[in-house]
Amino acid sequence: MIPTAEKVRLIELLGATGLGRIEVTSFVRADVIPQLADAEEVLESVRLPESVSVSVLIPNERGLERALGHRDRFQEINGFLSASETHNEKNVGRPVAQSLAGLRRTFKRAREEGLRCEGVISTSFGCPYEGHVPVERVLSIAGELVAAGCAEVGFGDTTGMANPIQVREFFAAALAALPGVELTAHFHNTRGQGLANVLAALESGVESFESSFGELGGCPVPPGATGNIATEDLVSMLHEMGIETGVDLGALIEASRAVQGVLRRPLGSHVLSAGPVQWS
Amino acid sequence: MIPTAEKVRLIELLGATGLGRIEVTSFVRADVIPQLADAEEVLESVRLPESVSVSVLIPNERGLERALGHRDRFQEINGFLSASETHNEKNVGRPVAQSLAGLRRTFKRAREEGLRCEGVISTSFGCPYEGHVPVERVLSIAGELVAAGCAEVGFGDTTGMANPIQVREFFAAALAALPGVELTAHFHNTRGQGLANVLAALESGVESFESSFGELGGCPVPPGATGNIATEDLVSMLHEMGIETGVDLGALIEASRAVQGVLRRPLGSHVLSAGPVQWS
Repeated sequence: MIPTAEKVRLIELLGATGLGRIEVTSFVRADVIPQLADAEEVLESVRLPESVSVSVLIPNERGLERALGHRDRFQEINGFLSASETHNEKNVGRPVAQSLAGLRRTFKRAREEGLRCEGVISTSFGCPYEGHVPVERVLSIAGELVAAGCAEVGFGDTTGMANPIQVREFFAAALAALPGVELTAHFHNTRGQGLANVLAALESGVESFESSFGELGGCPVPPGATGNIATEDLVSMLHEMGIETGVDLGALIEASRAVQGVLRRPLGSHVLSAGPVQWS
Repeated sequence: MIPTAEKVRLIELLGATGLGRIEVTSFVRADVIPQLADAEEVLESVRLPESVSVSVLIPNERGLERALGHRDRFQEINGFLSASETHNEKNVGRPVAQSLAGLRRTFKRAREEGLRCEGVISTSFGCPYEGHVPVERVLSIAGELVAAGCAEVGFGDTTGMANPIQVREFFAAALAALPGVELTAHFHNTRGQGLANVLAALESGVESFESSFGELGGCPVPPGATGNIATEDLVSMLHEMGIETGVDLGALIEASRAVQGVLRRPLGSHVLSAGPVQWS
């Protein structure tokens, strides 16, 4: 268990890097994920610059009500479901249609409270249980999320099954199908292809990416599903490609080093070990 | 020190995966790199399928003479130098021009012996000491290597400074400048961008890639320069992209697992942990 004060310190280090949006906690059930039992306390304690849009992960309507007790502390919510029935069933214990119905109510309520909404679709690029997930199915769910009030839809490669050719074809279709919606790529580095997939998405026109400092994170289902792409590796590649992010890479590396200190284990991030490119 | 018999066993596991070319050892000075003191013994002992072209790393003419004592055991040599003066000086203790003169003699002698020659240019995409390395300089050295008899030129991103935009521009120029030569991309995953750079090179027309099982390898200079891209991560991405390699990914993972057993530490490869994508 990471002490709440440590979490707050790490989030504030991230907040000082120039990142525009940070997901600070998740209002899941404390008995399911005890590590997140302090969601309210984290949200109340953390001090971030005005420039940071604060987001929280909301698993259901109950979670939203808990978060709304601290309405002035955040600006966005993320709601999620899986594109494949089996992954959704194993992750949240209900069919996709039922998750979608719950998300419609959640996003409606959140919109009434003036919150910006993102819907994230897990297993968008493949499911460890079902294999291929049709693009049409993913985009149909995305359309439902937009109709439910989402300004942003994230597509999650939850278990690292995406490849660059697939990513390029997927986002070409998604950008055509969902004009005016912020489309976000959420890649995991499960098989080392995370940044290659970023490159493919970027060159398809995607401008929004989700990542995690130190290549942390993953998915509870299936057990052992490894981490999101590392924010510092992502930012390093973008900067080297001449793409401005507004993020201070040195400060980001310091934040990840602090996480490593708290977790007391080496993290998966490469730039954390190697440091930024020095063009001397 | 890895026992010679273990090295031979690991190389033979690699040889059974369908790989077409394997660099099995290096004829560097035993007092400089004691781990490679058994080069002759490895070369004599290893049994590989006819379909595998066996390559050895040759640092200088003395190394070639040692290798030629076992002429029937290999088909190719790799000779190397750096594109930047400072890295060449720190790595092999002489100016680039002097390395080039030595390589000319080495490749001439090797060609007389009927050996195929590859010249590898380290720091082709940037030098940790000098920063930017002009493309013209790298391609000029490449032209010299071809004139000296190389059928193949490898471009090494020795300390992981390359980015996909740079890689694309580089290989567009290289392919135009060196028609008919096998151009090989040799990326390191120092900052996690290895496979993104592979994608960029591939889509520029490069068809030859060097990698190392388990993301092993690196460079002695500067100390701590981390590993080559992992062969299993590379092969996994290529297969997922629908590109045939002739390599059995499962067998490759088993080979890397055996390396992990010998080294008794987790390796950097992602597919080794996650396994191949299962489309079920």
